[in-house]
Amino acid sequence: MAELPDFVSIREVGPRDGLQNEEPIPTDAKVRLLDALSSTGVKRIEAVSFVHPKAIPQMADADEVWQRATKAEGVRYSALVPNTRGAQRALAAGFTEIEVVVSASDTHNRRNVNRSTEESLDDIAELIDLLHGAGARAEVIVATSFGCPYEGDVDPQRVAGIVDRVVRDGADRVAFGDTTGMGTPRRVRELVTAVRDRNAHVPVLLHFHNTRGTALANLLTALELGITEFDASVGGLGGCPYAPGASGNLATEEAVHMLHDMGIDTGIDLDALIEAAELAEELLGKKLPSGVLRAGPRTRLTPRPTP
Amino acid sequence: MAELPDFVSIREVGPRDGLQNEEPIPTDAKVRLLDALSSTGVKRIEAVSFVHPKAIPQMADADEVWQRATKAEGVRYSALVPNTRGAQRALAAGFTEIEVVVSASDTHNRRNVNRSTEESLDDIAELIDLLHGAGARAEVIVATSFGCPYEGDVDPQRVAGIVDRVVRDGADRVAFGDTTGMGTPRRVRELVTAVRDRNAHVPVLLHFHNTRGTALANLLTALELGITEFDASVGGLGGCPYAPGASGNLATEEAVHMLHDMGIDTGIDLDALIEAAELAEELLGKKLPSGVLRAGPRTRLTPRPTP
Repeated sequence: MAELPDFVSIREVGPRDGLQNEEPIPTDAKVRLLDALSSTGVKRIEAVSFVHPKAIPQMADADEVWQRATKAEGVRYSALVPNTRGAQRALAAGFTEIEVVVSASDTHNRRNVNRSTEESLDDIAELIDLLHGAGARAEVIVATSFGCPYEGDVDPQRVAGIVDRVVRDGADRVAFGDTTGMGTPRRVRELVTAVRDRNAHVPVLLHFHNTRGTALANLLTALELGITEFDASVGGLGGCPYAPGASGNLATEEAVHMLHDMGIDTGIDLDALIEAAELAEELLGKKLPSGVLRAGPRTRLTPRPTP
Repeated sequence: MAELPDFVSIREVGPRDGLQNEEPIPTDAKVRLLDALSSTGVKRIEAVSFVHPKAIPQMADADEVWQRATKAEGVRYSALVPNTRGAQRALAAGFTEIEVVVSASDTHNRRNVNRSTEESLDDIAELIDLLHGAGARAEVIVATSFGCPYEGDVDPQRVAGIVDRVVRDGADRVAFGDTTGMGTPRRVRELVTAVRDRNAHVPVLLHFHNTRGTALANLLTALELGITEFDASVGGLGGCPYAPGASGNLATEEAVHMLHDMGIDTGIDLDALIEAAELAEELLGKKLPSGVLRAGPRTRLTPRPTP
């Protein structure tokens, strides 16, 4: 077995990626969820996105949510922005870690923003300059990195080429989104290898969906390849509204539960995280797909039957 | 990465383990499901169990189901039996591959059959003799091999000791059940290593549940350890009624989908398997938990949006 890392850095994306893909909930509820997550020991949280309220009403109150949220010491908060206007709002709100998205698949990118991948990369180059000029760091998230629901397989060399481009344009980090859960251990291996061969040092984060049951197998494969940064969403909150057939994000509890059992630290208190997932269910008024939320961790025993 | 196998042998357990843990369905429906599965290309099917109809009404018509089912060429069918009476019925029905179960956890074994693990192993020794005397092969399934919901961790050395005993008593094969989904990559590695260290040559099969999302990560780990035989249940049918908090079996489609994408053959036609899972949903009148059934394989694309 490959040497496994001692620590894995989880970025909790429930407050942004999760809530953005659920029915809107009140500002109070968003603040409560953010605060609950901030006290789990997680080191990174994707807090909000600054998008047009007409396009994504779930994030219309991003400024207020962020203003009211308790900023926990030792937690890195990030925001996602689609364009210059969003970047200006994020910077004005005080964010210094900011994410932008492009889809590796041209068809998927056009479907989302009516531009080619190349055109979006031109926009992103300008955004990176804007962010750097304001002292913020820029992460580029490459969606449909493991496959596109319209085009099918996405050539890992195409994704690696996008990484070349954004690194050249100054991106501080890259993330790879398995937007519709087309990732498998093989695809993870091929993508990570292709990217690493051409960009050995850029910080890489992987974002898996569990649409076809492979999320933790993919995570395990990535660990064996030396990847130590992953997105996950409390309770498995959210999905992708633009992606037909997509189911939710990898549940943070499921990732943490497996990692801790493997002796890999995350800094997260799993019980507190499960409480945050229970809170998310309460706030949304629906059941979330996380198995560890449902069944509890493997260490939570059933009282022995009386003889 | 460890060398992966070219072929993995899946035993489809939906007709027995799956249906045994769902609401009873008519005999006709069971025959239809068995026949649909027999034509998927799967090489092994756990067809029925011969248990007391009072204890498990779902299998009360096992004789008739088996008699009416089409026996496909090239498919090995097996039956599960709890005791001598069941073994005699299975032999009379013509089965030559027969499974018996014992739980590695004493508490769990007592809860199920009101006997200690040791007492059950004594019974199994006699059952093996009976089966061998009739020319049949005997597989011992060790339940709670990756953890017990009452006792917690189960020492892999205890499980390996059970294997020592049953191999001495003549068992032709052993299987390890993750009865309540407590298995993780670490536990799989520890168990397989402990068993292989003491019994390098006994054929081993693993049976995972997806209760905490780890089923495919466990399967991947087992592949890397050279294991090539797995149970899975069409659609994720069934669970364990005796196990609090247990969710369904690993869905056969999810296993096959990942394996095929990794270039590992199973002999199974994935489309035919998904049709069988759709049939299972229709026959049971409920949604099953399989992601690949829900979303389709990663190769099933969405029509491109019109420009």
